[in-house]
Formats: sequence, C-alpha cells, structure tokens
Amino acid sequence: MANAIPSRSENYSEWYNEIVKRADLAENSAVRGCMVIKPYGYSIWEKMQRALDDMFKETGHTNAYFPLFVPKSLFEAEEKNAEGFAKECAVVTHYRLKADPNKPGKLIADPDSKLEEELIVRPTSEAVIWNTYKNWIQSYRNLPILINQWANVVRWEMRTRLFLRTAEFLWQEGHTAHATSDEAMAETRQMLEVYARFAEEWMGVPVIKGYKTPNERFAGAEETLCIEAMMQDGKALQAGTSHFLGQNFAKAFDVKFQSKAGVLEYVWGTSWGVSTRLMGALVMAHSDDAGLILPPKLAPIQVVIVPIYRNDEQLAQISDKVKEIMGELRKKGISVKFDDSDANKPGWKFAEYELRGVPVRLAMGARDLENGTVEVARRDTKEKNTVALEGIVAYIEELLTDIQQNIYKRALAFRESNTYKVDDYEEFKRMLDEKGGFILAHWDGTSETEEKIKEETKATIRCIPFDAPREEGKCILTGKPSSQRVLFARAY
Amino acid sequence: MANAIPSRSENYSEWYNEIVKRADLAENSAVRGCMVIKPYGYSIWEKMQRALDDMFKETGHTNAYFPLFVPKSLFEAEEKNAEGFAKECAVVTHYRLKADPNKPGKLIADPDSKLEEELIVRPTSEAVIWNTYKNWIQSYRNLPILINQWANVVRWEMRTRLFLRTAEFLWQEGHTAHATSDEAMAETRQMLEVYARFAEEWMGVPVIKGYKTPNERFAGAEETLCIEAMMQDGKALQAGTSHFLGQNFAKAFDVKFQSKAGVLEYVWGTSWGVSTRLMGALVMAHSDDAGLILPPKLAPIQVVIVPIYRNDEQLAQISDKVKEIMGELRKKGISVKFDDSDANKPGWKFAEYELRGVPVRLAMGARDLENGTVEVARRDTKEKNTVALEGIVAYIEELLTDIQQNIYKRALAFRESNTYKVDDYEEFKRMLDEKGGFILAHWDGTSETEEKIKEETKATIRCIPFDAPREEGKCILTGKPSSQRVLFARAY
Repeated sequence: MANAIPSRSENYSEWYNEIVKRADLAENSAVRGCMVIKPYGYSIWEKMQRALDDMFKETGHTNAYFPLFVPKSLFEAEEKNAEGFAKECAVVTHYRLKADPNKPGKLIADPDSKLEEELIVRPTSEAVIWNTYKNWIQSYRNLPILINQWANVVRWEMRTRLFLRTAEFLWQEGHTAHATSDEAMAETRQMLEVYARFAEEWMGVPVIKGYKTPNERFAGAEETLCIEAMMQDGKALQAGTSHFLGQNFAKAFDVKFQSKAGVLEYVWGTSWGVSTRLMGALVMAHSDDAGLILPPKLAPIQVVIVPIYRNDEQLAQISDKVKEIMGELRKKGISVKFDDSDANKPGWKFAEYELRGVPVRLAMGARDLENGTVEVARRDTKEKNTVALEGIVAYIEELLTDIQQNIYKRALAFRESNTYKVDDYEEFKRMLDEKGGFILAHWDGTSETEEKIKEETKATIRCIPFDAPREEGKCILTGKPSSQRVLFARAY
Repeated sequence: MANAIPSRSENYSEWYNEIVKRADLAENSAVRGCMVIKPYGYSIWEKMQRALDDMFKETGHTNAYFPLFVPKSLFEAEEKNAEGFAKECAVVTHYRLKADPNKPGKLIADPDSKLEEELIVRPTSEAVIWNTYKNWIQSYRNLPILINQWANVVRWEMRTRLFLRTAEFLWQEGHTAHATSDEAMAETRQMLEVYARFAEEWMGVPVIKGYKTPNERFAGAEETLCIEAMMQDGKALQAGTSHFLGQNFAKAFDVKFQSKAGVLEYVWGTSWGVSTRLMGALVMAHSDDAGLILPPKLAPIQVVIVPIYRNDEQLAQISDKVKEIMGELRKKGISVKFDDSDANKPGWKFAEYELRGVPVRLAMGARDLENGTVEVARRDTKEKNTVALEGIVAYIEELLTDIQQNIYKRALAFRESNTYKVDDYEEFKRMLDEKGGFILAHWDGTSETEEKIKEETKATIRCIPFDAPREEGKCILTGKPSSQRVLFARAY
C-alpha cells in the first residue's frame, strides 16, 4: 500500500477524500466538477437504488423519464425556482460543431447552429414535468399522479467534493400531483418517512426529521421537510428532502383540474429527492482510519474468504471446504467472495478488504481444516473469533444482522453524545468551535436572526425537528421569546 | 375511445405513432426532439434493463458512471469519432443565467460565465472513458476492464420519431479494454451474441447477425457487428451494435500497458450498446391494428382480469374467486391486475388492455362462477376459450410460454417470407418498391457501389451476415465478382 491514510482526528477532510479514492468508490474526472463513479462505488449505489425503488413502488409510485433539457422559457416560469437555480445552470447554446478554420484538427461551435432558445441542463425537473402534467390532468379522475424519475442533474459548483458536492450528480426525483392540499401534504410526509426508514434501516444512519426554515426551503416550495444526519466530525449532512409545493407550479404552468364538485381548481404538488450524496454520508457516518465500514445490507461483498496456505495441496483442500461454505451462504442470499489469488499475501488482502469495508472476513488455514474451525473477523469492531465450521452459515447470518444493528446503534450513540442544549450565545459559539455537533437552541423565528447567526458562527438551522417539545425560551441571539428549540449545526 | 387508429396497411408510420401515444408508451415533450417516456412505456424499458443487466453481469461486467459532459479537447482526440459526431452535438457554453436587463422576469446566459472550453453533451462516451482508463491501466494485471454504463446521451436530430430517433435517448454503453486483439474481438462477438439472445428470447424478435460495411461502421471502430430485425412494413431496424475498436482510442488517449513479456503496448478496446430504440422495434415487430402486442417476458401486466357483473353482490362473489386466483398466479411470479373499476364497461376495458398489449385477459361472470370456468383471451391471436378454473394457473403459465414462442415464430415466418435472393438490379429496385423486405444480393465490396445503390434505391447494406454461405456471383450493380451475398434493405 502507498502512503498511509490520514487519520480522522488528523485531517477529517483528507481522510474522507482518501477513503473515497482508495476504496475505489469514485474519482475526479477530466471534466471540472464531475466525478467518475467507479464500479465498486457504483455497486453500492445500485443497492441503494434497488432498495429505494422498491420502497417507492410499495407506496404506489411508478417510474418515468423526462427530458434532460429545459427550454429557457419553461425554466423561467416558476419565478422563485428560476431565481434559486439560475446561478448554477449549464446552458446549451449550439447544436453542432464544425472544423475550426484557424486550427486544423480542432473544432468550434458552429455559429450557424446557434439555438433560438437556449436549453438549460436540468438542475431539477419541476418545470419540464409540470409543463407535461398540464396535458395529463383534466379532471380529479386523473389524480393523483405519483411518478418518480432516476436521472442525472447538473448544478454548477465552484468548490466540489466527491459525492458531497459535484456539478453533475445522480439522483431520484419524485413529482406528484394531487387534488387537495391535505393529500399533497400527506404525500410529502410519507416520502420523508420513506427516506428516514431507508437511512436508518439500510444505511445504518440515524436521522432527525424536521421542517426547514423559510430560508433553507427548496426554491419554489411552500414547505420543505428534511432528514439530517450527523457525520463523525460532528457536522450535519442533509440526507434527503421532501417538498410541499402548494399550488406554485400548478399556477406557473396553469395546471387545473375539474373537482368532483365540478369546479376548476389548481393542482397541489410535491417533489422529493435523494442523491449520490448519500454515498458521502455512508462513508462519513461509519468508516474508520483503516477504511470503509459498510452496512451489510448495502455491501456489494458481504463476506470475503481468504485462504492461508503454504502449498498447492493445502490450497486445494481449503478451496474444497470453502466452496461448500460459499454454496450454502449463497443459498441464503449472502454475497461472498473467495480471494485465492496468489498475487498478494493474506496480510495485504486483510488490509484491502478492510479498506473496502467488507463486513465479515473469514480466514481459513490448514489447522482450521483439521480442527473444523474458521477465523471470523467483523469489520465494524475488528473483533476476531475462531468459530466451529458446524453451524457457520447461521453464525454468519446472525453476525451480519448484528453488524447492521451495531453500526446504527454506534452512530446513534455518537449523535446523542454530541447533541447539546445551549441557552447562551457565547457558549453556543464556544461549543461549535470546541466540540461541533448538534445544538438545540431557541430561535426567535426570523430570517434576520438565522442569517446573523450563520454569518457569525457558520452554523445554520438544520431543521425544526418534528418531535421538538413545546418549551418556552428566549432566542439565543436576540432574547426574544421562542416556543421550541431548533437544531443548529455546521453542515456539509 | 377517440378516433380509430389508422391500420398498418393504410399508414404504417401513423399507425406506429398512434400506438406509441395511445398505449401510453411515450410522447413528444416541449423540448425539441426529446421525448417523455411515460410510466407504462418506462416499465417495459425497466424490464428490458433488468434482463440485459443480468446478462451483462453474468458475462463478468460491472456498472459504473462517467460524466455527462466531454470537454471539447477530449472530444477532438479520436479524429474519426469526433468527425462522426461533430454535426449532432449539443454544446454547453455558459454556466450561469442572469436577469435580462432588457426584459423584466426573463433570464439570459450570463456573458461573464462563458466557459473557456466548451463542453459537449456526450453523444457516446468513448472519449471520456478512455481518458479515464489511461489512469487505471499500467500493466496486463489491470486488464481486462469490463464496464457498462446506463446513461442518457444526446445526438441532435432534425427529424425525430418517438423511440426510433430522438435527440436525447437512454441506453447502455459497454466499454472494455483488453491485452490482446483476439480477446477484444472475442468480447465484441460475445456481446453481439448477448444482444441477439435478448432480442430473440425476451423481445421475441428474430435478428440477423453480421458485420457492418466500412461505410456503416461506428466512427472510430475497426469493425462493427450488428443485429438487424425486420419490422412489419418490411424495413430493417438495427437493434444493437458491438464495436471492435482496435487500438484507435488507446492511441488517441495514449493508453499503454506493460505486457507479461515486459513490453509497453497499446490497449485493445470494444464498445457496445442498445438503446430505447428497442422500444420502437418491440412495437413495430409484433403489434396489430388493435394495439400493442407484448411478449409476456417484457409485459408489465401479464394477465388482466375483468369481472362481468350486474350488481354488487355478483361483483363481490367474483372478486372473492378472483383474489384467490391472483394469489396463486403471483406465487408463480406472474404479474396480474384485477380491473374492477366501475367507471368503464367491460367492452371498453377489453379494448383498453388490447391496446396496451396485455398478453392474457380473463373475463369472469356470474355464469362462470356457477360453472367453475373463466373466459381466457390471448392477445397475440385474439383466440378466446372457456377454461375450467381447476388447473387455471398451470394453464396460464403454459399459455404465457406459448405466446412468447408464438410471437417469435410469427415474426420469424414473416421475415422468411419477406426475404428474397435477387440477382438483377432492375428486379432489385422493383422488389424494394413493390414488396420491401430483405434482399440478399451480390455486391462488389466497394463503398462507391454501396453508395450508388443507396442513392438510387434508398436501400443500404444492413450487414454481411455471419452465416452467409460462400457463393460465387456478380455484383448486382457493377457485375464485378463477389463471393457472398450481403443483406440489403431500406431501414429505420
């Protein structure tokens, strides 16, 4: 192995970059701000997609596909949305290249192919989709429309970081249309619950559900719900958002329906999305200085088996036994890899699979064969045990379940021990600088206060938690009355 | 239902457009040349994706993701490839919009955000990918690289048709790198076989495998293999291509590896793809004047059940029985829908599910309940039978298999009866005009002849079939000697 990975305590940010690159998750490309998602990283994303897609379908949604490009006039239609995204849009202006008359072998955009109307590479698809829904909706019988799309989107970013902030990223965006405000709000909530369940049950990442403040809402939404997760450096990461759009897009695109009562009304909308950003959250929530730690449910390889042998005969004997075990594991739906390559020593392999976050490692040598045992190492705690081969499949099944739960519990305990109630602004600033973490504090409810705190401390209101108890208090900055604490943190 | 769908014999082209729109597969969007793939159409595409993805993985490939944008300088690197795609490229020139100073509420591309280097929206990804592989490959130990990507691509088209030719389309593109020419050629062939198997076994569309002529090769390839299918109007549709890239991209991007012998050599490459165009092929190969005909393996709904009832009591009794049958069908992995909505009459439902190509329809009335029977209608032949409920699940399973085979056989018989050997140029022209179909004829092997024939007849050489027997003959146009027949047709 090349240079050591910097430890988390040394340089958290560099640690993250190195883990992402060395575990073969992703790398920067030749295209400014765009990443290459490598096969190992992509196979984790595929598992996320499959799990989420199943949850979307279970809740009655279907997939569809809408165009990559948004004509400028459509983009402009919902003013707040346009204003929110205008500063980070890739703009297509020409549809042809031609030979550069001044430089042989080079090409230029053909001036004769200039578009009459520029096309925006979608930063999000509300505009294109609501312009389409307009034609699909006449009556209440056409509602609800419950559609999701898996797609790439582009938001130009000056400072990019693999997975966390890239100019192009992959995501899913749900776009639904409803006859009533209540139904749209119920959908908005339902999808946030789906995201929370996915984060906790699949990623092993505990999240806090809440409302965004008006300042932090999606451009064009009436209400934005979010899930917020804590990373190991105490910073927050927004892991998913679900927006109640009210009738904003329906009005911008003139989408009306005839109600049961025969009245023409504007349609109510929602949109909701999670992205490859979740890959960054997964890395930062669990991994350690030796590399990735993956929850078994999302690990492309759940069990790796490494043979320890001195000669070909020993390898052959070990292989026979291993193949038997592999067959049984696969029957149980457990993905397993046998690394019998002779290019690398066992110690190298151990380090490599630790780096890649494989949840369970088995090592089997000649003595194990004799004794009917195998060495089992779990990635999350690095514990090793010698275990009888008899009943090994059931043992591993249980172990995978235990690891899945353990990394969740560990992340939850970390968050709890790094969440503070603070009532004094000086202490608030000191805590942020010294400890980081989540701070529950009183806020007077104004955007001015929120912005001033952000300016002075770099902390933002991550959300107004759903489950925050009513509690009389005074705003940490202004001393004005407040009726509940909100969640402050520095964030990714 | 609105206006009747034009029949195939009346207006094949309009028939196709109407089927695609009315069966809710896709529609044109507000973005020139880009389509919206609607939920029903997308669910067929998802089934195609799943089947192909499994086949790619079985043959050792993994998925990854590469950037949407290609910087102009990378795009230029492989000259033939650049030349081949330059005329149909969407070009991003700016990364920001700003308020139009002259028109309140409107936006313009901010002149201050002009990119130093334009970005091309990928028409295909060889350039970006080989530029990445350069960093992944040092030694023969890093080879082969077997990667696939599911993505959207953009090729500007002036005349577009839903699925068949759209500016943006969805596809998969495999990009592999190998140590030897033989290995790369074997991969090229293997993937063409995968495509052929998918077309025949899943889509029920027989295909002819062969080599493209140099004229019709992928820009930048040394050899292009293809599968060609016949549509019901006798025209050909290229359903998939697999390219042997030689060392062209390795040379353009300077991708070398150290061989086992310690010599630095250029890497050998392949690329291969199929796209949403297959959706067009699926429609045009099988469907009839009443609507879609879907192969059971790709049908989102395989069985629909329509109750025939006079009152709520009858409906309740029928529903009880239907739910029992549905449970059993689902246990067998058969997707089934019970349409008990009271908004439409049975006759309307029958027409609707015919339009949507549901392979099997069951209709159950009060008398059926009494007699322990159900009416079974198959979509492909429109045959109806009254069948005993006892053993109905096994009956339906067999029926689905039979339909899958039948539509393949029917398409094969159609192709065979519309494929001709022709040795005279006048007859060749007459056949094309009067009968269409595939023509096997001798060709002298030159691009000039090929182009002249295309100009005069609009027929192109679809491929040089792998299984064409050696046969001495004379070129149909020039009379020069030829050693085998090639496949001519007018094509989509």
